[in-house]
This record gives sequence, C-alpha cells and structure tokens, in this order.
Amino acid sequence: MTLRIGVIGTGMIGQQHVERLHGLVPGATVTAITDHNETLAKEVASQYDGITVHPDGHSVINADDVDAIVVTSWGPTHEEFVLASIAAGKHVFCEKPLATTAEATLRIIEAEVAHGSRLVQVGYMRRYDAAYREMKATIALGVIGAPLVFMSGHRNPDVPAIYTREMAIVDTAVHDFDVARWLLDAEITGIRVIAPRSNRHGLDREGGDDLQDPLLMTVETSTGAIIHVETSVNIRYGYDIRGEVIGEDGTVALADRGLTAVRANGAVSVQVPGDFQARFRSAFDTEFTEWVAQVSSGEPLTGPSSWDGYAATAVCAAGVQALQTGERVGVDLVEKPALYA
Amino acid sequence: MTLRIGVIGTGMIGQQHVERLHGLVPGATVTAITDHNETLAKEVASQYDGITVHPDGHSVINADDVDAIVVTSWGPTHEEFVLASIAAGKHVFCEKPLATTAEATLRIIEAEVAHGSRLVQVGYMRRYDAAYREMKATIALGVIGAPLVFMSGHRNPDVPAIYTREMAIVDTAVHDFDVARWLLDAEITGIRVIAPRSNRHGLDREGGDDLQDPLLMTVETSTGAIIHVETSVNIRYGYDIRGEVIGEDGTVALADRGLTAVRANGAVSVQVPGDFQARFRSAFDTEFTEWVAQVSSGEPLTGPSSWDGYAATAVCAAGVQALQTGERVGVDLVEKPALYA
Amino acid sequence: MTLRIGVIGTGMIGQQHVERLHGLVPGATVTAITDHNETLAKEVASQYDGITVHPDGHSVINADDVDAIVVTSWGPTHEEFVLASIAAGKHVFCEKPLATTAEATLRIIEAEVAHGSRLVQVGYMRRYDAAYREMKATIALGVIGAPLVFMSGHRNPDVPAIYTREMAIVDTAVHDFDVARWLLDAEITGIRVIAPRSNRHGLDREGGDDLQDPLLMTVETSTGAIIHVETSVNIRYGYDIRGEVIGEDGTVALADRGLTAVRANGAVSVQVPGDFQARFRSAFDTEFTEWVAQVSSGEPLTGPSSWDGYAATAVCAAGVQALQTGERVGVDLVEKPALYA
Amino acid sequence: MTLRIGVIGTGMIGQQHVERLHGLVPGATVTAITDHNETLAKEVASQYDGITVHPDGHSVINADDVDAIVVTSWGPTHEEFVLASIAAGKHVFCEKPLATTAEATLRIIEAEVAHGSRLVQVGYMRRYDAAYREMKATIALGVIGAPLVFMSGHRNPDVPAIYTREMAIVDTAVHDFDVARWLLDAEITGIRVIAPRSNRHGLDREGGDDLQDPLLMTVETSTGAIIHVETSVNIRYGYDIRGEVIGEDGTVALADRGLTAVRANGAVSVQVPGDFQARFRSAFDTEFTEWVAQVSSGEPLTGPSSWDGYAATAVCAAGVQALQTGERVGVDLVEKPALYA
Repeated sequence: MTLRIGVIGTGMIGQQHVERLHGLVPGATVTAITDHNETLAKEVASQYDGITVHPDGHSVINADDVDAIVVTSWGPTHEEFVLASIAAGKHVFCEKPLATTAEATLRIIEAEVAHGSRLVQVGYMRRYDAAYREMKATIALGVIGAPLVFMSGHRNPDVPAIYTREMAIVDTAVHDFDVARWLLDAEITGIRVIAPRSNRHGLDREGGDDLQDPLLMTVETSTGAIIHVETSVNIRYGYDIRGEVIGEDGTVALADRGLTAVRANGAVSVQVPGDFQARFRSAFDTEFTEWVAQVSSGEPLTGPSSWDGYAATAVCAAGVQALQTGERVGVDLVEKPALYA
Repeated sequence: MTLRIGVIGTGMIGQQHVERLHGLVPGATVTAITDHNETLAKEVASQYDGITVHPDGHSVINADDVDAIVVTSWGPTHEEFVLASIAAGKHVFCEKPLATTAEATLRIIEAEVAHGSRLVQVGYMRRYDAAYREMKATIALGVIGAPLVFMSGHRNPDVPAIYTREMAIVDTAVHDFDVARWLLDAEITGIRVIAPRSNRHGLDREGGDDLQDPLLMTVETSTGAIIHVETSVNIRYGYDIRGEVIGEDGTVALADRGLTAVRANGAVSVQVPGDFQARFRSAFDTEFTEWVAQVSSGEPLTGPSSWDGYAATAVCAAGVQALQTGERVGVDLVEKPALYA
Repeated sequence: MTLRIGVIGTGMIGQQHVERLHGLVPGATVTAITDHNETLAKEVASQYDGITVHPDGHSVINADDVDAIVVTSWGPTHEEFVLASIAAGKHVFCEKPLATTAEATLRIIEAEVAHGSRLVQVGYMRRYDAAYREMKATIALGVIGAPLVFMSGHRNPDVPAIYTREMAIVDTAVHDFDVARWLLDAEITGIRVIAPRSNRHGLDREGGDDLQDPLLMTVETSTGAIIHVETSVNIRYGYDIRGEVIGEDGTVALADRGLTAVRANGAVSVQVPGDFQARFRSAFDTEFTEWVAQVSSGEPLTGPSSWDGYAATAVCAAGVQALQTGERVGVDLVEKPALYA
Repeated sequence: MTLRIGVIGTGMIGQQHVERLHGLVPGATVTAITDHNETLAKEVASQYDGITVHPDGHSVINADDVDAIVVTSWGPTHEEFVLASIAAGKHVFCEKPLATTAEATLRIIEAEVAHGSRLVQVGYMRRYDAAYREMKATIALGVIGAPLVFMSGHRNPDVPAIYTREMAIVDTAVHDFDVARWLLDAEITGIRVIAPRSNRHGLDREGGDDLQDPLLMTVETSTGAIIHVETSVNIRYGYDIRGEVIGEDGTVALADRGLTAVRANGAVSVQVPGDFQARFRSAFDTEFTEWVAQVSSGEPLTGPSSWDGYAATAVCAAGVQALQTGERVGVDLVEKPALYA
C-alpha cells in the first residue's frame, strides 16, 4: 500500500521533499501540493506524474487522495496546518519549527493529546544521521560512562542577508539543542549566550544588519549535563558539524567525513562538506523512509514529537532572551503529557 | 514510466537486488523472477506485491511485462541469459562475471556488436562508490599529476569453506582489476602473482583446502602504470578496502570510513566496515539508480560494458595461470570494437 | 661556557629537571641543589658527578659556582627564592606558580623592574610545545583569519587524593590560560566557571573531598576573543590535551598524536598519551634548551615573564572566586611595566 | 666519564653528527675531526671548543684523546676506516653503507669476529624511530598475529642531478630493507624490481640521466613474509615514509605525523614532513644517545651490526642486478657468525 502524501509549501526544501517522496522513499508517492506562489507549485507539479496542485493547505489536508501531510511552508503558517491535519485525523510531518511560539506548540500538543495518539512528527533530521546514531549507540553501550558534557559546533560557510543574529539561535542552534536533548536523554533547563569578537564577514553586510557571530551558548539540562554550542555562520571553509560527548571514562565525537585523502603540496587533506545538503542528505532520506514506514504500518512513531517541537521552541525563546539581555534565562516546561512518555 | 525488471537468480545477492529494485530505486519495479530453486523464488516473490515467478530465465527474458533483465544466477549460466537478452533486444544487467571464460565474453561482444548498440552492463559496483569517484575526479583535476602506480588492498574478515585459492583472483581481485582499469584509464597487459607466508586462518580449514592467503599481484598496464593488488581474505579485523593512486606530484587514497571517533582505554578509534554490504551498499544503490535512469531514458549506458566484462575475465584467466605457475603471464586482448570506444 | 645551575627543590619535577640540565640540555650543568628533605637531596646528588647539596635555597642562590637558579620547591616558597635570585642579580627559572598570590607576583615584578632587565622566567612549558607553536604560526600566517574563540580541553586520567576542586583552576586550567594568552596575544579580563554533573570517579574518593569535575570555563579577553576551557581530571582514557582556535575563515587544532595506526578488532586506532610526561617531555627539553641558550648568550629572554606569572595568578584568583560564587568575576590587571612590552 | 669521539668526514651529515655529539648527546664530546677537504674541517672545528683537526682518518683513529670513531666520509673509504678502528680496538659508528661491496663487509666481519666482540655499529637510524619501535612492539604483543607482508613506501620530494637509478636501491630502499629485516626478524632471500611508467620530474634532468622512478620491489624473506618497497624520489609533495605490516589478524602502520589540523578552504589538512631531517631528527638523536651510553658503559651493542651492514649491502647488490636485468635475483648470505646471534 503506497502512502499518498500532500505537501504544503514548495520552496527549496519543499521541492527536495517532493522529489524524495515521489520516487526515492519506498512506499510513498506525492499526490497533492500547494504553495502561496501558485505558479511555483504548478511548475513543481509539472515535473512529475500524478501530482495535483491545490489552492491552499486546507484543500491538501482534506483531499481524499492524501493520506498524510508534509508541511514545508513558512514558519508562521505551521500551527494552522498542523492543527488542521490533527483535526482531519491525518499524520503530519512538519519541518521545524513546529510553531513559532511555545504557546502555539502547546496548542498543538493539546489537540494531539485530545486526539489520543501521536499524529505529528517534527523535522529534526539529525536524529536520523548515521553518525549521531552511532554516537548515541556508543553512549548506550557504556563505553564512555555517563555523559557529562556535549560540545556542539555548528559551522556554516555563509548566510544570506536576511539572516539576523537571533536566527543563529532559532534557525541554527535549534538543531544542536534538539540533537543534544536526544543524545543526552535530558531536558534543557537554562541557557546563557556569549558573543565573542565578531567575524568581519558578519559585519557591513550588503542588505543585512551586523551579526554577532560566532556565538557560544552554555546550556543546562535536567541531568546536570551541560551542552556547549558554538555557532559560526560565516566561517567560509565549509559546512562543518562538530560534536563530542564527554563522559566519565571517555568521549565520542563526530569524525571527519572526507572520502579520500589527498597528499599534495606538503599536506594530507580530506574534504569538508560544502553545505547542509551534502552533509545531511542521507539523514533526510532515512527520516522520511522511517516516517513513511511507521505511518503506513501503524507502528508507533519514534521521530521527534510535538513535545520535542515544544521543547525546542521554548529553549529558542529563552535563548533569544539570553542573547538580548546577556543574562542566563531559565526554561520552565509544562508537565509532560503521558502521550510523549 | 516505470522500468519493469525481471530478475534471474534469487540467491543472497539476487534477493538484495529485488528489494533494491522493487522500492528503493526510483522508476523501477520488479515484475518477474526465477531461480533454479523454485521454492526459494516463491518465498521471495511472496514478500512483495506484483512479482510473478517464472519457470526459467528464458521465460523471464521473454515476458511481455519485463523491460529489462538482471542476471544474478550462478556464473556458468550468465552467458546463456545475457545472449538471450540481447536476442530479445532487451537491456541486461549481469552480475560479475559476465561469463566464465574470455571466449564466452567475446561471443557476447559479438552479439552486442551485431545488435548495434549497448544492451549489456556488468556489475562492477566500485565504479559507483562515492570515494572511488572522488579519487577519479582528483586525478582528472591534475592534482597528483599522471598516475604511475595504484596500490589496492582487498581485505575480508573471512571466507567460506568453498572459497579456493583461485577465487582470490576470480572473485576477489577482479574488483580491484576493474576499478584500476577505470581509475587509470588503461588496459591490463600482464600479471604476476606472489604468495607470501600463509595466514594460519586459511590453513586446516574444515571442509576447505589450504589457501595461499594473502596474495600479492603485480599487474602491468598499457600506459606503463603498475597496479599492485593485495588480497587478504582471512584478516579478521574487518572488511577493509584500501587504495592509493601514486602520481607524479602526489597521491590520492581512500580515507578511513568511521563515522565517529571514540576516545577510550588509551586510544582514539574509528570503526572499519564489517562486510561488503556495509561498505558498498550505497554503491549498489547508485549503480542501479543510474542504470535504471539510463535504460528508461534511452541515454547511452556509462557503466561497465561487455568489453569491461571481457577484459576482467581475460585478466582473471591470466591471473589464475600466473598463480599456478609462479610466472608472469601476459594478457592479449582482441581489438576493441568501436561500440566500446 | 657552561651555565652552572642551582636547583631548589628536588621533588619529582625537580629531579627531572636536574637530569635534564645535567646532561641533556647543551651548555648546562647542575652544580648545586637543595631540598627541605635533605636526605632526598643527597640521594639525588649521589646519582651525578659534581653536584653539591646545600642547606637551603639562599645558600644555593649565593653560591659562587651557581650562575642561574631553577626553583622547583613548594609553591608558597617561590616568592622568597625568586626575590633572592633577583637580589643576587642572577637569572631564575621558576616553576609555576611564580607566587601564590597576585600581590606576591607584583612584588617580584617591582623587584625585577628595579633591577632594570628581565631575570625571571616562569615554567609554562606549553609555549615550547611544537604543536602549539605550529598553531601560533598558522594564525600568524593569516590562514584562519583573526582568532575569535579558543576551545581548550585539558584531560587527565586521574588525580591524587590531595587534589581539590580549586586545583582544577590553579594547577590545571592555569596552563590553558597561559597558552591562550600567548596564542591569542590577549589579556584575560573576566571568567565564569560552570560545574556540570560530576564524574563519579571524582566522588567518594578515599582521603579526598568530592570534586566538581569536569569544569567548564568561559574566559573573556581584551580583544573580545573568548577562551573556553574544559577540565576533565578523572577521565581515565588518557592524558589528552585538546585545542582548537576558531578564526574568521577557518580553524587550527591540535592533531591526534599517535605514532602508529593499528587495524584490529573492527577498528583503526591510534594511542593517546598516558600522562603529561609523555605529552610534554619535548616541550620541557626545548624550554630549558632555549632558556639556557638565552641566559648564556645574554640574548633577551623570550619565555614567560614575571608579567605572565602575575597575569596567570590573577586569573586563577578570579577563577577560584568564580567557582565558589557561581558568578562572573572580572580580572583587573595593573598597568604593564615597559620592561614586559 | 665523557666519551671522546673522533669524526672522519665533515660533510653535511658529518657536521650534523658533530653538533649532535658535541652538545646534545649526554656523555659525549667530539675531540678530533678530519676531512679530505682540510679547509672545511677547520671551519667546522672553529665553531666549537676543544676540537682538533687531524690530517687523516688514521690519525683520528689512533689519537690518544679519541675513545670511539664516527665514520661519515665517502662510502668507498668506509672499509679502510672501520678496519683500522677494529685494529685499534676502538668502537666505530659507520654511516651506511658499511662498505660498498659484500666482500668488503665480510672482511670487516672477519676482523670483528677475530677481535672477539662487537665494535662496529652501522647507521640505520630507522630502528631508533619511535614510530617504527611502536610498530615492532605491537607485532611483539601479538595484536596483528604473525606478520605476512610489509608494505613500505619511501617518498622524496626531489633528488639531486647526481642521483642515478641504482641509488634508488643503494641509497634509498636500503633503509626499507634494513628496517624490514628488523621489523620482521627475517633475512632477505631474493628480490625483483619493477619499473612503472616514469615520473616526468625524473626525466630530462639538467645534468642527470633519466631516472626510472618510481620503482616497485618485491622482496622475499626467510620466513616467507614478503616486503614490498615503493620508492618515489621525485614526488614533490613531501618527504613521506609510509609503512604497514599486514599480519594474520590485523595491521599496524605508520600514522600521519602532522602536529596540527587546519580547517580552511574546504578541507582539513595536516602537514607532511619536508625532508629527512624533519622526519628523522629524533631518531638520529636517540641512535647516538643509545650508542654512546652502551659504548661508555660497556653494555652489549644493540644497534645495527656488521652483519646487518653485510646483509644490506648484499641485498642492494642483488637489487641493482634485478633492476638491470628485470629478473628475480636471489640473495645467498654466508653463515652467520655466532657473534651476531
């Protein structure tokens, strides 16, 4: 039985997911799409067989030939479409953020709890990356003892002019927050943000405000483990995701990813990924492969839940406040509903 | 348009290809299978929708709902099924060897040349491995100068009792020969095989003859570049494919493949793949994805051809003779038909 | 002309320096030693030719056959012996700390400034480590752009029972502070200390108080660059000094130090040093070789000065206060005398 | 007691050893030197205290203030000076080759056996390199099982015009032969040399003949283990000594030697040594430190013996013949005197 999917939002990431779900991922097909730019939606649809363009997200959600929904539209619209999907009793995969405020994510949780079973998954794809999974497995085996610190480095070669200093938290570090919660099996309870001397590439930007870049974040968790996040979003040399979990007896870290080692000009060198596609393409594939398999079979969802979406959004709100005030800001989550235990 | 594929032979590798072609590879589906063990074929078919079990390979090849054939049966049957596919004017993907003797591969070449366009592809999957492709691209960029030597190491943790010393050449080193021809853009012209002191794990084997393992091979090519192949098929520590092309100004080598680095017990360590599936799964995926796309679109095939299958088989024959005699054995290929230029 | 050296304090590190200076370091010999444990001093002297045991440090300092002094006695005695050396107009190499309080180090600075030229060098040996020197050279070449962050990891397999939580700053992180000041060419202006969940190996210690281990330190500098120090002093797996300077365009990091790569049991592994001797032996050798050469030739001293000793001590005092209060503590240094420009 | 050393030959390597032995190596001093270029010898002597220039090697050997001799003169003179040292009953360290023909090395062995104890050490410094020693220790621990193959790569950025194709064996690969004999605890019994396509940097050389470079050598040993040597003496990218011992259960290899890892311009890179000094300086230091300690204390010599010098020379003679004929050439050593057991 092929899972028929409707995609809301066909920007860059939406287009990639359409391609992924309409061919690559076993057991899935895309039947319906929409975008606030209808011309774009039609262009995308024209590249495939059997995809209908709908006037809006609600039309996609309620279409008879749509079994499940993927939301890749603009962040502020996420809440509406996720709630509508829940109302329709359909599974919905929502790219991050689940919603733009913690309050909105709580409304989603309320609706999903009222529904009585999980329908929502949030697109934190790092949990599907083979390297992070190997890290988590190594921790579970006890090789490094209890995890005490997670050092996470998030490096981008550059960012567009629209990128603001707050986006280093809300768009960039949010991935580090989520994967840290998952790796350490802990909730985040507080955050402090430190701005070192700024990278010149983040200053005097054409069409953009000066950035505080890099940023360092000291993030507290419920187990006492500390997460340290470094975001460097103009570092030119590559898209480089670093990470090391420091335990009682040892550590486990993401390895360099070069496929070949070149010996030339006095050095041995291996390449660094150039962008997030190169780094995380396989993780996106696995993410949707597992989601489609679980939705199709009726097995419980194991991916990031509404709760994870809420926690991430709450931490980001605290992070933004911490950045703006220079102070430590606490994160107080509501009680976790049993549905997410 | 979905490419409908018939698979001849549903042993281990055949089953993997059925799974791959009936879900994972875009634009493909498996409609027909057969195996000399009919019970096995039925079992395999029962796990999927829409696969018919046929009494034999010729029935698969000539089925109306079969657009292209994949041959994964026992080696000695390859010639027959490949020739029948050509006769039916259908594309055929044949796992190595293309045929068991050089003469047989030449009969296939003759048939394909008579047909007038390429229909045959041979399953040398290393050409689809991202790391080997990066090596070839680096050479093409001139970073290391002209390639002079290719050191190739082929290491298996263990082999079954049926594995004979000749299989180190015909089943194992043949992959090194093919990828070397492709990396260096050269034909092999001669081979010498040296047997060092034997690994104790290859001696006194229950149900198997004593092996000469490891083997070292010095392989000459048409450009003067030398290929050095080391096969170690009982080396226990992992499935480890090593390779370094030595050029005039530098070298390019396959990098270690570990995803994470563990610091524990006095050392930093990264894992080595455990078997060829772990190492080459992605290469198999890419191999079929590109083959299906090219066959479906009518674009020219770029994968290993009948000529490559012939060259590999001819080199293996020389290699076996070199092993048995201890002498250097020359490889004299026929003139290359224009079809394979 | 051989430089005749007197060594005050013949504990473990003192004995190592006697051996180093009485044979290994060109142009140096040890002529006089003392220790508050006279028996120990006599034992040490008996292993070499030509070393006289003196009753106390002042006797060593004022001996006619002593050209320069090495102070490796208990920290609280450093001030006295360094001041006496200056009074005698002799060069003095003092193991860290230069003195136990910032006030004491300022008295040394005052005396040295009154003397009019540098006589004091402090034993921060990391500046002589070939890897740190390569980092500094890479930064100077502009390869990574301006340095913005320095991530420093200081890991010990274990510590003795007498080790207290404050020693993680005063004895351990002080090396990170000094090498960071030197790498970044910046003064430290403030520090905050965060204590994650404690390593169980630092708790319930026989004969020792519970440790807060690991510790994370966020250290501010005069250029705006931030230093992040992680101390993990019970991490069992090895003595592992990590470090990465993050710049505007790239980073430079300490590489792993294994001499050989072993492929066995499913992994490729390289060894981590077992203790600080294995890691820094060469740095100690270079430190004394350069010091002896500079003192003998009358060239200006280039090693860590009294000013560096003062700065390190002032930062440590702030660090201890930051650890005890949980607050950020500023570091306000006096104006830097011209002698140290 | 300081060992007083006479150095015969003050070319580049001789000058380095004078500096090493007249300051760096504990317990040693240089008292006498000579060179066929007397002006050069005087210049060298003038840089140090207490070194007398002698008219010739025999004068050095027989000087009263010379306890041991270091021979770093032109290869054809080695036999004469080593024999004279033995006649004088003095220890002699001879840079490779011990002598230029196997017959000459046998005359040295005869003289040393007649003397009744070891007086001769040959300068194969790789045995003192910490990485090779770690390889040998790993083999001894049984981690990789019995060694079956040793792959040795010897790469030079360039060679002077006087370098001939035979020197790739006699001057370059001889180090690989010696370290292989020592690592594998085996004698070499035969050799074949293969010349791949030539590196363009070795052709059309100003003032030099065309080289066959790289060369590949298949070297047989008494245990059945095979040594494979690759010499690439014009490979531009650096001075890079590679080596991997392949055993029954795993392998041990020389690791890359970079001290820092730079992340810049899309890659992570570590440096390769630029020349043999950078690579083997520490090995030379250790070589002389251990030799001086053993000679001074009267402990048995553990370094490369006359026997090792004979074996190396015999293998090189076979290697040159193998290169010139293209055939396998056997190596038949005389019976090993008990002195070298």
